[in-house]
Amino acid sequence: MDFGINNFFDTKHKNSKIGHYQDLEHIDGLSISTVSCGLYEKKRDDLVFFYFREGANYANVYTQSKLVSENIKWNKKIKEKKIFGILINTRNANAMTGKNGYNSLKNISTNLSKLLNEKQNSDEDFPKNIKPNQILFACTGTIGEKFPEVKILNNLNNLIEKIKYTQNKLIWIKAALGIMTTDTKPKLSMAECKIGNSEVKIYGIAKGSGMVYPNMATTLGFIFTDANISSSVLKQILNLNIKTTFNAITCDGDTSTNDMLTIFSTGKAHNKEIKNFKDPKIKQFVKSVHQVMLNLAKRVVSDGEGATKFITINCQNSKSEKDAKNICFSIANSPLVKTAITGEDPNWGRIAMAIGKSGASINVERLSISIGHYFILKNGKLVENYNEKNVSEYMKNENIEITVNLSNGSKHFTTYTMDLSKEYIDINSDYRS
Amino acid sequence: MDFGINNFFDTKHKNSKIGHYQDLEHIDGLSISTVSCGLYEKKRDDLVFFYFREGANYANVYTQSKLVSENIKWNKKIKEKKIFGILINTRNANAMTGKNGYNSLKNISTNLSKLLNEKQNSDEDFPKNIKPNQILFACTGTIGEKFPEVKILNNLNNLIEKIKYTQNKLIWIKAALGIMTTDTKPKLSMAECKIGNSEVKIYGIAKGSGMVYPNMATTLGFIFTDANISSSVLKQILNLNIKTTFNAITCDGDTSTNDMLTIFSTGKAHNKEIKNFKDPKIKQFVKSVHQVMLNLAKRVVSDGEGATKFITINCQNSKSEKDAKNICFSIANSPLVKTAITGEDPNWGRIAMAIGKSGASINVERLSISIGHYFILKNGKLVENYNEKNVSEYMKNENIEITVNLSNGSKHFTTYTMDLSKEYIDINSDYRS
Repeated sequence: MDFGINNFFDTKHKNSKIGHYQDLEHIDGLSISTVSCGLYEKKRDDLVFFYFREGANYANVYTQSKLVSENIKWNKKIKEKKIFGILINTRNANAMTGKNGYNSLKNISTNLSKLLNEKQNSDEDFPKNIKPNQILFACTGTIGEKFPEVKILNNLNNLIEKIKYTQNKLIWIKAALGIMTTDTKPKLSMAECKIGNSEVKIYGIAKGSGMVYPNMATTLGFIFTDANISSSVLKQILNLNIKTTFNAITCDGDTSTNDMLTIFSTGKAHNKEIKNFKDPKIKQFVKSVHQVMLNLAKRVVSDGEGATKFITINCQNSKSEKDAKNICFSIANSPLVKTAITGEDPNWGRIAMAIGKSGASINVERLSISIGHYFILKNGKLVENYNEKNVSEYMKNENIEITVNLSNGSKHFTTYTMDLSKEYIDINSDYRS
Repeated sequence: MDFGINNFFDTKHKNSKIGHYQDLEHIDGLSISTVSCGLYEKKRDDLVFFYFREGANYANVYTQSKLVSENIKWNKKIKEKKIFGILINTRNANAMTGKNGYNSLKNISTNLSKLLNEKQNSDEDFPKNIKPNQILFACTGTIGEKFPEVKILNNLNNLIEKIKYTQNKLIWIKAALGIMTTDTKPKLSMAECKIGNSEVKIYGIAKGSGMVYPNMATTLGFIFTDANISSSVLKQILNLNIKTTFNAITCDGDTSTNDMLTIFSTGKAHNKEIKNFKDPKIKQFVKSVHQVMLNLAKRVVSDGEGATKFITINCQNSKSEKDAKNICFSIANSPLVKTAITGEDPNWGRIAMAIGKSGASINVERLSISIGHYFILKNGKLVENYNEKNVSEYMKNENIEITVNLSNGSKHFTTYTMDLSKEYIDINSDYRS
């Protein structure tokens, strides 16, 4: 199903100033390689390498879980100014694997950096002293299983051989497919804009269709730009944009040990390096990154395990943003609301239940609830001409919008989620899915 | 399915000092009546009245939702020393029904108290001035639908006519059936003990199989005793016992607008009225009430919507009880853990995920996880002789126990929940279940 995801393209398309979507193409300064190490029983790419021959600026946000995977620990220790690559494997999360899991990453990065330096030797323009700790790792898959170090080591040569220095639509799709676990679709997004007179590109891919919950870089997401932006500004852009994108989605309320979102800038566009977040020249760029992030975040939700509906939940006019967020997520994570939506039942009582349990400050006499453009409750009272048949008809849509208006403040929040269907149970009760 | 609920009987039975379980019989000072008002399409009892001809002491705990039903508002206003009855209806929650819903209760209690006073006239020993606000209400069912005041009013005469002044097994089962909504089984429990030399009885019934979550009097529960205990002591007994019983269970993480648990004492046993919670004479009584409450709470979980497994989750040796509770509920409410258990998959990585997202203070190197009596993780490391096959075999049981040991403190908590099966979706996506 598509949840009108293609409409995201169309909607944004109208605003040609923000940029436009199209098939992802080449980003100067980036190379991509994908291989299969045989991590799955069925043959598929399971190792993806994004490689920056001349290095890249970068910034990360990570899961807020207290039990993080070994690769997150590895990445957090890196203080290098430039990064030369990120290696992403699927099938194994490298979480709860302890020192062995960490040492695997040490061995892999040592070998990989050696191979890269050998390769760089062939071109005198490129740095030849890539260090192991200039390689980031992203891992996703089952927690607590031994990390497949040997299988990955055995495929590093192959990975280097397959590096594509120029990208096209196909290699991007291969990369987006190569990082998938229970996802049913690759997730790609792009925007273009100007910094001063320079055209810059922002490309992104993501994976994730379960264990998706906010307050961190949910799922894996990788954003690439050729814009010339300092790492500290990249970090501020990520921090600003994550709140209303990857931190505004939830599939099942679960939070991974491995979530990360990384942005890389190769600096190959012609703009002068941006070192100040408040530089007015990047206003449009910040928005375009937001657009790519929101698009990817929505794709994650719309591909949520067993999703049959894409649900947008707005909470308006609350006392605090925290209240609005609590209400949105209380509704979004309620199994009773989710299953009512699966059943196409406008059971707004369950929405009220979720509002009540959120702990937010509420004045019932000012509370309004609407589904789609149908008001159900207005200032605490069922609207007089309420016709459930109309709302039942609306519930048959693939895109469902719920709006709660508290009328006791001026803050708001919007969250995105999917429903809870039997397919979710099927996928997740399957042995070691 | 039964989850060895009958074993609760057997287990407790061994300890004859605590009391024993048996079919519920008569409690002096209590009368019961059940009728059908036609609130459901299919004919069934939907109105249950517990009546105290000479009044009863009582204490309540209520839902912590910010949006409470009209009957909770009604009950909270009552400051009378003695209560004469509680009227329980199903099918309609009387929540989000505003002033109309509240006025319905006013009308019903006015009519009901009149009828009761007429009835009391026939016996000169009984009080003849029962006031409307000496009747409590419990409602359960769909939120936001008009309260069926007229149907209930029309059946009050019938309700009075059917009052049984003596109880037996059958009338208790009828009452427990009459308060059910999506429950598949009536929930009854009993204990007997002594206060001084007086034998006293504690009988309880409950309903609830969804929207069950802690931090309040989840579900509806009614406890009756003939012991002579002041209302303030009853309140302290409820508050103490609720933490580890009704507030330690969760089915789907959802919280109702209507939850309440009430205890009534008719005072017809021969003990002198207990006015001090610290009176050593009630030590055993407090434990027996706990036993009845825990038994009912477990029955609610075991009858959880679509439950195929009964799950006990222990968190041991945490820094604070809050940490232990957060970890227990993070595991218990995780759809990924629940579905793994449905699939009989010992996917302990998901347990680790849920521990990580709980926000509790954890030292990974001290963390241990076991399923049943199988250690999986010990001090942060996978146990050397870990044999997944054994645990897979264990997962086929109906009763699953998960234990997390943090080894960084001395607090603990235990919670009870069930798994998440396709049947949950079936039940809850069914239009207006």
